[in-house]
Amino acid sequence: MNTPLMINAFDPARAEGLEPRLRQLLQRRERVLGPSYKLFYERPVEFVRSQGVWLYDSHGTPYLDVYNNVPAVGHCHPAVVEAVSRQMSVLNTHTRYLHDGVLDYAERLLATLPDALANAMFTCTGSEANDLALRIARTHTGGTGVIVTENAYHGITAAIAELSPSLGSGVPLGMHVRTVPAPDAYRAAGGGDQVGPSFAAAVQAAIAELQRHGIRPAALITDTIFSSDGVFADPAGFLVPAVDAVRRAGGLFIADEVQPGFARTGDAMWGFARHGVVPDLVTMGKPMGNGLPIAAVVARPELLDRFAAEARYFNTFGGNPVSCAAAMAVLDVIQREGLQANAQRVGLLLLQGLHKLAEKYAVIGDVRGAGLFIGAELVKDRASKEPNPELALRVVNRLRDRQVLISASSPCGNVLKIRPPLPFSAADAELLLETLDELLREDVFRAVLSF
Amino acid sequence: MNTPLMINAFDPARAEGLEPRLRQLLQRRERVLGPSYKLFYERPVEFVRSQGVWLYDSHGTPYLDVYNNVPAVGHCHPAVVEAVSRQMSVLNTHTRYLHDGVLDYAERLLATLPDALANAMFTCTGSEANDLALRIARTHTGGTGVIVTENAYHGITAAIAELSPSLGSGVPLGMHVRTVPAPDAYRAAGGGDQVGPSFAAAVQAAIAELQRHGIRPAALITDTIFSSDGVFADPAGFLVPAVDAVRRAGGLFIADEVQPGFARTGDAMWGFARHGVVPDLVTMGKPMGNGLPIAAVVARPELLDRFAAEARYFNTFGGNPVSCAAAMAVLDVIQREGLQANAQRVGLLLLQGLHKLAEKYAVIGDVRGAGLFIGAELVKDRASKEPNPELALRVVNRLRDRQVLISASSPCGNVLKIRPPLPFSAADAELLLETLDELLREDVFRAVLSF
Repeated sequence: MNTPLMINAFDPARAEGLEPRLRQLLQRRERVLGPSYKLFYERPVEFVRSQGVWLYDSHGTPYLDVYNNVPAVGHCHPAVVEAVSRQMSVLNTHTRYLHDGVLDYAERLLATLPDALANAMFTCTGSEANDLALRIARTHTGGTGVIVTENAYHGITAAIAELSPSLGSGVPLGMHVRTVPAPDAYRAAGGGDQVGPSFAAAVQAAIAELQRHGIRPAALITDTIFSSDGVFADPAGFLVPAVDAVRRAGGLFIADEVQPGFARTGDAMWGFARHGVVPDLVTMGKPMGNGLPIAAVVARPELLDRFAAEARYFNTFGGNPVSCAAAMAVLDVIQREGLQANAQRVGLLLLQGLHKLAEKYAVIGDVRGAGLFIGAELVKDRASKEPNPELALRVVNRLRDRQVLISASSPCGNVLKIRPPLPFSAADAELLLETLDELLREDVFRAVLSF
Repeated sequence: MNTPLMINAFDPARAEGLEPRLRQLLQRRERVLGPSYKLFYERPVEFVRSQGVWLYDSHGTPYLDVYNNVPAVGHCHPAVVEAVSRQMSVLNTHTRYLHDGVLDYAERLLATLPDALANAMFTCTGSEANDLALRIARTHTGGTGVIVTENAYHGITAAIAELSPSLGSGVPLGMHVRTVPAPDAYRAAGGGDQVGPSFAAAVQAAIAELQRHGIRPAALITDTIFSSDGVFADPAGFLVPAVDAVRRAGGLFIADEVQPGFARTGDAMWGFARHGVVPDLVTMGKPMGNGLPIAAVVARPELLDRFAAEARYFNTFGGNPVSCAAAMAVLDVIQREGLQANAQRVGLLLLQGLHKLAEKYAVIGDVRGAGLFIGAELVKDRASKEPNPELALRVVNRLRDRQVLISASSPCGNVLKIRPPLPFSAADAELLLETLDELLREDVFRAVLSF
C-alpha cells in the first residue's frame, strides 16, 4: 500500500519522547479523529492563543508564524473579531433572502478584479470553489479535459482530488486530466526567457494528447504562484502563451488564487496580475475571511449562463452575512494597514536576506517568490542542482525548535516555504533570517565535524 | 434548454411591483452575483435581524420562521454568539497543530452516536461531508455504484451533484448511480406495512441492475427523513431490510443526517435511530454550528484505514477552533434547553393540529413527519391522490404574506415543508396552524366563488 506523501508530517511512532500533555492529546486524536489527520513537525506543537504574527503554546512560549496564510491580516485581528461578533448577534442567514451584506462584499471584491470578471459565486472552501469552477468550465466549453501542473494541489473534493497530483499515487488522476511540468526558471533549459515558451509548449502538447484521445479541453488550471510545485513567480508574464494556447483550443484559464490571492504577492491583489493575463475564472479561499470559512468563484458573466440554466446551485453557508462580514473586514484591513505594500516591502527584504545567505551557504540553490510568498530551494550541490529534501526537513524542524514556523514544498519537499501573515514586519524578517543563518551555520559545522 | 426546478423560486420578471429598496437589491444581485442565485417567494423578503424563531425585515416587521433548520437552536443564540466571539479573539487555526477544541467537540459529538461510530472527520459543508463519505465508501469497498432515492438531494460538489436527482435533468446522474422510489407510506401499495419490504426490493433490484453492468455497489445513501422526496418518517424501521440488502451486496449504508440530525426528529439525536439501524457512515452539516460552516463524517474506524493509507486528506477550515466552539455551544444548548424533547412535544402538537385541519380541508391528503420535520401533502382529490403543487405554492406565498415562513418539497413541490428552529414553542405552532387554517378557509371560499 502506498503511503501518501505529506512533507513535514509527524510520525506517531515517535510520540515516546513528547511531554505528557502532548502525548495525551495525541492519544485522544488517535481515538476520535480519522487516521487521515496528520500533524506538522517531528515534535508537534500545541497552540492555545495567538495574536498578529505570533502563536503561543500552553507554556506561553511565542512562535513566530512564517507559515500561515489563512490568518492573512494577522491572528485574531480585532477588526475581524469585532465584525464577526457584531454580525453573529444581528443576523446569519442564506442568499435566498435578500441581504445587503453579500452584495456590499461582492461589489467590493469585484472592484479589486479586472472589469471583465464581473460576477461572483460564494462557497465555503477553496476546494468547493475549484469544484464549482470546473463544473462551470465543463458546462460552458462542452469539454472535459483539464491540464494541471505535475505537483498541483487544487483541493479535496472527489472531482478536484482527481486533478491534484500532489496528493500522491494513491489518488488516481482523472481519465480526462493531463499534467505539465511547472514553469521552473531555476531548472529551465535555456534560462528564464525560455520558461514561458516551454510552459506553453507543454500545455500545447497536453492539449494535443487530450484531443488524440477524443477529449475536448475544458480548462488549464494553475495556482498562479505554483505553491505545491515549489513556488514559481518569475519571469513575470510567463503564463501568457500557455493561456493563449488553451483558449485557442476552446478551453478556459482558471486562476487558482487560493494561495497567492489577497495581496500576498505584494505587487498586486492577485497572482495572475503579475503575468498580465485576465483569467476566465478565478477561485479564491483560505485568507478571504481570515479563518472564517468563505471562498468564491469570480467569472466572466457569460460563462455562467449555461450553468445557471442547466444546474441548480445553492451553497447553504456560501455568502452568509457573518462570513461576508469577516471577508469585508479583511479587505478593510488590507487597505487600511497597507498590507499589500508591506508584503512587497518585507518580501523584498526577505529575498535580499536569503540571497545573502545563499552567498554564504551553497546549499541554497535558488531563492525566488513574490511578496510574502517565497521559496528557498535547497540542493546538495549547485552544479547538479540535486534536491536536498533531508536538509529542508531538518531546517523546518530546527526552526520549529527555535520557535519559528515554516514548512517545505515541491514534489520532493526541498523548497523552504515562507508564507507568513501579511503584517509580517522587517524585524520579523530579520528574526527569521538570523535564526536561519544560525542553524545553517551549525549544520555546516556538524557536516564538517562528521568527516 | 432545461430550466432547473426550484420550488418556490422568485421570478425576476415579476420585480416590477416590489418596493424600490427591494428592486434596488435585486438589481445589485443581478449585476454582481452569478445567475444561479435564486430567491424564495413571489415577493422576496429582505431580512436585517433575527432572534430565536423570528426574522425581521427592514421595516421591523417580524416573520415567524417555520423553515430554517440551520439556526437550529434559534437565530443569534447568545451562547453561540459568545462562544464564537470568545474563540475568535483567542485562537483560530487548523488541525495540523494540536488543539483540544476539536478533540473536546469530537468526543462530545461521538458520545451522541452508536459506539461503533467512533471516528470523526470534519469538513465545512454537508456537500463536502457527503463527497468525503463517498470517497471513503468507494475506497473501502472497491465498488463505485451508488443507490439514491428518486428525488434525493445530497449536495453540490461535482461528485455529489451526480447523485442528487432533485437537481433536475440538466445535471446528469453519474454512470454508476441508480435511483429507487422513496419509501412513501401514503402511496404504497399494500399500506404502511409494505413500505420497508418495497423499499428493500427496489434497492435489491438496483443492486442487480448495477451488477448486470459490472458495477460493484459502494453505498446506499439516504437522507433519513427523505426531505426532498417529500418527508417520509414512518413506519419506523422501514430502512432495515434495504440496509441489509446493500450490505449483503458488499456495499455500505451512508446516513445523510444533514437534514434530520441534531435532535430535529424529536425521538432521537439522529434520524437513523428511529429505524433501528446503525449506519456505516454518517454525514452531518447544516445545523451543526447554528450557521457557522462546520460539517462532518462519522464512521466505523476500520472503514477509514485504507482511505487514510492511500489518500492525503486535509480540510483547511475543517475542525477549526472557532467552528468547533460554535458546534460545542449548539450541543450545550440542545441539552440545556431540552430542545430534543421540545421538538418531540411541539412536533406532536403540529401533527395533531394538521390532522385536525385535514378533517376540515380535503386538500390535505396526508400529514407526516417526526419532531420538527413535518410534511403536509396537498392533493387535488383524496381518492386519486393527485398532487396539488399549485395550491402548495399558493399556501407558501400567502403564508409569507402573513409573515409565516415555510417552503414546499417533493418531486413536484406539493408537500408543505415545516422545519422551524428547534426552540419553536406551542404558541408558535398555534400561530402557524391558525394562519394556515385562515388561508385554507379563504382558498376554499375563493374556489367556491370562482364556480
